[in-house]
Amino acid sequence: MARTSTEEDPDEAWVVALAAAVGGAPEAGVGVGDDAAVLDAAGHVVTTDTMVEGVHWDDRLSPADVGFKLVAVNVSDVGAMGGRPQWATLAASVPTPMDRAWLSAFAEGLQAGLRRWGTRLVGGDTTRSPGPRVFSLTVGGQAPRPVLRSGARPGDHVWVTGALGRSAEAFLAPAPGPEAMAWLRRPLPPVALGAALADAGLVHAMLDLSDGLARDLGRLCRASGVGARVDPASLPGGRPLVQAVAFGEDYELCFAAPPAASDAICSLAAMYGVSVSCVGTFTPSPELVLIGHPAWPAPAFDHFPRGPA
Amino acid sequence: MARTSTEEDPDEAWVVALAAAVGGAPEAGVGVGDDAAVLDAAGHVVTTDTMVEGVHWDDRLSPADVGFKLVAVNVSDVGAMGGRPQWATLAASVPTPMDRAWLSAFAEGLQAGLRRWGTRLVGGDTTRSPGPRVFSLTVGGQAPRPVLRSGARPGDHVWVTGALGRSAEAFLAPAPGPEAMAWLRRPLPPVALGAALADAGLVHAMLDLSDGLARDLGRLCRASGVGARVDPASLPGGRPLVQAVAFGEDYELCFAAPPAASDAICSLAAMYGVSVSCVGTFTPSPELVLIGHPAWPAPAFDHFPRGPA
Repeated sequence: MARTSTEEDPDEAWVVALAAAVGGAPEAGVGVGDDAAVLDAAGHVVTTDTMVEGVHWDDRLSPADVGFKLVAVNVSDVGAMGGRPQWATLAASVPTPMDRAWLSAFAEGLQAGLRRWGTRLVGGDTTRSPGPRVFSLTVGGQAPRPVLRSGARPGDHVWVTGALGRSAEAFLAPAPGPEAMAWLRRPLPPVALGAALADAGLVHAMLDLSDGLARDLGRLCRASGVGARVDPASLPGGRPLVQAVAFGEDYELCFAAPPAASDAICSLAAMYGVSVSCVGTFTPSPELVLIGHPAWPAPAFDHFPRGPA
Repeated sequence: MARTSTEEDPDEAWVVALAAAVGGAPEAGVGVGDDAAVLDAAGHVVTTDTMVEGVHWDDRLSPADVGFKLVAVNVSDVGAMGGRPQWATLAASVPTPMDRAWLSAFAEGLQAGLRRWGTRLVGGDTTRSPGPRVFSLTVGGQAPRPVLRSGARPGDHVWVTGALGRSAEAFLAPAPGPEAMAWLRRPLPPVALGAALADAGLVHAMLDLSDGLARDLGRLCRASGVGARVDPASLPGGRPLVQAVAFGEDYELCFAAPPAASDAICSLAAMYGVSVSCVGTFTPSPELVLIGHPAWPAPAFDHFPRGPA
């Protein structure tokens, strides 16, 4: 639930405003505006993400890639809450007559994603539509110790998993490498590590990087009432700065943890086969500083603005 | 999760096939193919329904009606499981630039629906789309004693709530009455009664009537391995037969109950201010018989085939 539209967060802003009007945050005190909503004291969480043909994918993705990625972007949100995904419902709007071959390939990719993250499809609704294919997946799971965006404290370290800018390279580079194309098509968010970090009580705040470090870390800082200083030399992936921080679709985790937790975090990450990098420090003042740069690169992400090729 | 598309259930057929391929029915043994999925032994249930502009509504519905109806069709499924709705997530795909006035009116109707059925919006995802407006709502709730479609037994009575054919009249009659137009725009499924019937252990099987009694009772019979004999004279609402059984969008309950439960059912329904009618009997042989008619009227429902007027 962290996808942006064309403007700065009109989507979430609208949904958040709507939710506020409807009756405010849920009793558990969290939910709307975080990666996933926490439903109850048992830590049941739920999240929804939509993919629209021509907006969230074009023919660089096969139908199977679309199915797989739909699962990935949703379980990424669950992992970012410190949760493990359990079930999913699918809402599919497709043109009629249905293209069964396309849908079968999509289903295969969806299955592969669901299997990878131990999630079962429990139901759904398929409707015909005169427009582009639209798929919404709702994923539920459990986060015994949910981690919100709002818990970062001054002095905490800023951590990110994996490498930044792979999808960006796939979009922006003249000759993107195979690793970049693979991540664009089938991102592999470190969901199990997110859950393990939460269970171990090692992190104060966490979200997944869907809209680029600049925007997403900004959200985490605003939610926590802190700022951050980020060292660009420490950003993992070795890609140009604009790709690493100003694009998106990383589906990596960004989290805040006290310095004393560093060794435990590295051990846990190694156990899960995920690389982690400390890229900065949270500060009491609310600025988001990129060390050595007067400003952050402008956002370079607008999904698939050209539509299907 | 009981909406049909143009053909006989291509939607659910596809989702059910997909779910089967993914790994079969959930552990709790129920879910896919019923009105809502049962997630666990505590009776947590979840359902998803989508409304596509020009397919599921045209300008007979105001934007606020669309928001209200989106809630109604979903909570109807929860009530048909014997559950009470608790939370919802919204996936909205809308053209950009966003029509804020339209969306505000939609949100108002959505709010009214959520309030009416005690459901809180916990999150969502809004995306831009070059196509028609598409809204998917996922609603979760709890059914301490979930009622499936598969429990009807020969000798049970066939019950329906309310009146049949109101939305049909709104579609098919040359001069539909205000009650019919109101139901088309803002159906009021008897969700609380569904939950109460289940809690009281009075019903063996239940579903909501979204696609007309002929099709929906057929589903309940197939799931239960029984047939039914329906007396057309007993169908509530006083509308022509084709409207009463062959159209849809009734959002009333249809349930199976032993004859001994009749008095208790009538008392409970009266308490909830809902009328109930016994319209037939379940039989051991699998036929669906409409007494005095050689066949059931052909389905007359294709959503809004003409698109927005």
